Amino acid sequence: MKIAIAQLNPCVGDIEGNSRLALSAVEAAEKNKASLLIFPEMFLTGYPPEDLLFRRSFLMKSAAALKKFSRAIKDKKVAVVMGLPWQGEGGLYNSAVFIRDGKVLDVYFKSLLPNYGVFDEKRYFIEGDKKCVWWLGDMRFAPTICEDLWDPDSGIVASLRGESLDFVINLSASPFHMGKMRQRLNVLKKASRRLGAPVIYVNLIGGQDELVFDGGSMVVSSSGLISFVPQFKEGLFYTSIPLPKKNIVPHFLRKEEEAFHALVMGVRDYTRKNGFSKVIVGLSGGIDSALTAAIAVEALGKERVVGVSMPSKFNSQETQDDVRRLSENLGIDCHWIPIEDIFAKFLAALHPLFKETDFDKTEENIQARIRGTILMAISNKFGWLVLTTGNKSEMSVGYATLYGDMAGGFGVLKDVPKTLVWRLARFYNRLKKRQVIPNSIIRRPPSAELRFEQRDEDALGSYSVLDRIIDMYVEKHRPIDEIISAGIDADYVRRVVRMIDRAEYKRRQAPPGVKITPLAFGRDWRMPITKALD
Amino acid sequence: MKIAIAQLNPCVGDIEGNSRLALSAVEAAEKNKASLLIFPEMFLTGYPPEDLLFRRSFLMKSAAALKKFSRAIKDKKVAVVMGLPWQGEGGLYNSAVFIRDGKVLDVYFKSLLPNYGVFDEKRYFIEGDKKCVWWLGDMRFAPTICEDLWDPDSGIVASLRGESLDFVINLSASPFHMGKMRQRLNVLKKASRRLGAPVIYVNLIGGQDELVFDGGSMVVSSSGLISFVPQFKEGLFYTSIPLPKKNIVPHFLRKEEEAFHALVMGVRDYTRKNGFSKVIVGLSGGIDSALTAAIAVEALGKERVVGVSMPSKFNSQETQDDVRRLSENLGIDCHWIPIEDIFAKFLAALHPLFKETDFDKTEENIQARIRGTILMAISNKFGWLVLTTGNKSEMSVGYATLYGDMAGGFGVLKDVPKTLVWRLARFYNRLKKRQVIPNSIIRRPPSAELRFEQRDEDALGSYSVLDRIIDMYVEKHRPIDEIISAGIDADYVRRVVRMIDRAEYKRRQAPPGVKITPLAFGRDWRMPITKALD
Repeated sequence: MKIAIAQLNPCVGDIEGNSRLALSAVEAAEKNKASLLIFPEMFLTGYPPEDLLFRRSFLMKSAAALKKFSRAIKDKKVAVVMGLPWQGEGGLYNSAVFIRDGKVLDVYFKSLLPNYGVFDEKRYFIEGDKKCVWWLGDMRFAPTICEDLWDPDSGIVASLRGESLDFVINLSASPFHMGKMRQRLNVLKKASRRLGAPVIYVNLIGGQDELVFDGGSMVVSSSGLISFVPQFKEGLFYTSIPLPKKNIVPHFLRKEEEAFHALVMGVRDYTRKNGFSKVIVGLSGGIDSALTAAIAVEALGKERVVGVSMPSKFNSQETQDDVRRLSENLGIDCHWIPIEDIFAKFLAALHPLFKETDFDKTEENIQARIRGTILMAISNKFGWLVLTTGNKSEMSVGYATLYGDMAGGFGVLKDVPKTLVWRLARFYNRLKKRQVIPNSIIRRPPSAELRFEQRDEDALGSYSVLDRIIDMYVEKHRPIDEIISAGIDADYVRRVVRMIDRAEYKRRQAPPGVKITPLAFGRDWRMPITKALD
Repeated sequence: MKIAIAQLNPCVGDIEGNSRLALSAVEAAEKNKASLLIFPEMFLTGYPPEDLLFRRSFLMKSAAALKKFSRAIKDKKVAVVMGLPWQGEGGLYNSAVFIRDGKVLDVYFKSLLPNYGVFDEKRYFIEGDKKCVWWLGDMRFAPTICEDLWDPDSGIVASLRGESLDFVINLSASPFHMGKMRQRLNVLKKASRRLGAPVIYVNLIGGQDELVFDGGSMVVSSSGLISFVPQFKEGLFYTSIPLPKKNIVPHFLRKEEEAFHALVMGVRDYTRKNGFSKVIVGLSGGIDSALTAAIAVEALGKERVVGVSMPSKFNSQETQDDVRRLSENLGIDCHWIPIEDIFAKFLAALHPLFKETDFDKTEENIQARIRGTILMAISNKFGWLVLTTGNKSEMSVGYATLYGDMAGGFGVLKDVPKTLVWRLARFYNRLKKRQVIPNSIIRRPPSAELRFEQRDEDALGSYSVLDRIIDMYVEKHRPIDEIISAGIDADYVRRVVRMIDRAEYKRRQAPPGVKITPLAFGRDWRMPITKALD
């Protein structure tokens, strides 16, 4: 008996589009003689729909689409499990429906609702408290939804123990972060052990604002992986029951590789789902903008990426040459718009107020804001999306100009620490089998080039140490003492921590970007701006 | 027997400062021979601490501060109920501790955790499941925390029925919105009826990022209000037990009056708690910037408010005269920085790209962004906070320039619909008993003055109709059909709804501002940017 896994990419809110996608999956599964077709969690509405779930019209549209979809497939032999929100008597449920012969035979309600990290499910849903066991031929299987399996000793899943099931299915919308596949496999192995049945895990794929769902659907028994679908690959995949008894050795992508794919998918889907024809990137000759442009080209093709170089007297000949070389290597258009004259006029206009002050970060920021204004002007004029180029290390300590280099619609590297930026650039060149990102860019000490002789690491300390502090303080919420005990200079730790705490107001106004770490500056980081910590 | 109500203003994160504030309240209550002193919910840490609660060091600091505080008051006769987070065996609780003779005698755990609107309590806390009854002399009373009383038929509170209590206390951190006092009184009356005992309701006061806590603590019996503390007034207030049997007639502030006080408190506390000496406001001659400046002067005094006028050729003589008059009336400094020369240089720099295009919103936005850059330069140079001036109607439909007039640290009118802006301006002049905001500003049809002959209402339609749609679509999540049924032109409704949905990317990058309506564009509005709705 063949089972089809719909590792497909819906769009949040596009209920009609998602229905069409679902219908063609049914056609294909039927043609391939599958007996069961499983969609991911909340496929019909896309995930996470967030406060759209408060709109009654949205829920009604979803319910109507389910009816229409069921009727449309009434002549198909394949049974379907679809994920969607379900308005029950007590409230709204995150649900999976079992459809056969054009009828919704049963509905299962998710029983464990994640309300941590990026998740707010208790804001929207109530917990289900009834298990379901469904038949397919002479097979008995039970539906579960995502989190349900992450704690198999509580909720509905605990009550499934003892049922003699042939298999368990799990509709999932599990967002990507580096290393998540390994974590999922362990969770599923444990769940399979507890339930005494293999698990068919069907994960969502695609980018949605700051989240990327990476797919990586798999079939897992208590002893390990039985089969899996590659991450970042959309499509319909098949497995068959009874499952082979033999495990396969999991092949996990390396850190840079999966991060790269996630960034590419995040950019592609944000651009596509929001209807942009092209993106623009300010190219400084630095590694962040180089990698951002490379990712954009990978995601969209070189014709849809436009570079803009906006030099001032502080930009060296070398970096300008590198911009030229990079644009050529990527095959993208690059426009040159010098900012010196505009900068001079700003200084003149502000002279009456500033005449007794020194050149400081104010004048640095003016340059960055001129560039932000130019990029946004091009965006406004032609309808292109501005990609920002700041990385997570900068976002953490606030080493970025609000409305300057932070101006744009999508922050590609927002969650990529600087040390990983370097690794990704090298990975990218290896992938392309040539030096697309010139080595001079990779090797040059980072500088904002907003005054002469400026070096990031003079202001911030070594990025490798900085990133260790960020890992501990931001990602793991470790106390300062513990970070110092790890062998980092105490004064430096305190200085960095203070910068991190104080930069909250900047982060609050940053554009969204692709989450690739376990804790990104997005829905999973809700810090007050006002917090007199020091 | 005297009971003291600490309607005091802590700062989130400032555990030491809040402890000091608490100690002086104990001193004062002791001097006034109070037997019991009640603090608001989470007073020791401030509310809401959000993800600071994930920092172990933060919780340890709070626990240590409680110990120190208890010991420091061991010679006092007054008993104290203090609100703080409490690390219990199963997890973290939102708690109230009963302190007497320097000892923590008991701890109560909040049982109903709000996880809607601006609240994320299930992200942090677990639910308490044990009631407490405490003695004070021969009086029996029970502690409850905020939400506990909002549904008196469930949770712990239901289990308190039948206890014969002399009174119930409620530690609260209930954020302000217009009309909330009336709602609270009804809730407390109902709770008092259910519990058969009067409620002493102690609410937090002060601004915290986008929230303002307005105080308005009160004593309520089943038949109505017995006594109350004014909103927006910090201090220690007293009531006595047994309570007078007679109700008083509640005096609710009028809508404009309470909104005005909330805005003033929001600006004052954001400025103070984040350590800014001054604020700057871009003055356009329009009503939004005029009201913003007036509120800032009310909050901080005229010496701490600086106006900046940044005229272009599109700004009329009349609006410029109004800026002068307004600055004089408010008694604030106003700097004049014309933007024409900078604008010309931007156009020149972009000419190679734009030469075959018409003047459109691109050029309009450049002007707004030049102004944003100038304000931010002044902010960077002198360390002053930029107040943005956009109102809720503009924020709703995206009639604002990202990084332009949206550039700044705090959006005073962000949650004030335009129709209420007018009412507030008139209210303010009545309050000051003179035309501080010139009538010409109030009466002039609104214009962004980014090109000649521009009128907001040509682009947006009448603000009075627009605000009705916003009220229904944003605040109440009403479906489009229903809005049309209310008698508004169908095409216009669809156009506005489309603008609202599409402006999400702008709102995501807006600064925080004071919430004054039941649903603001802040923590209580979590809409995806990517949402193919049309």
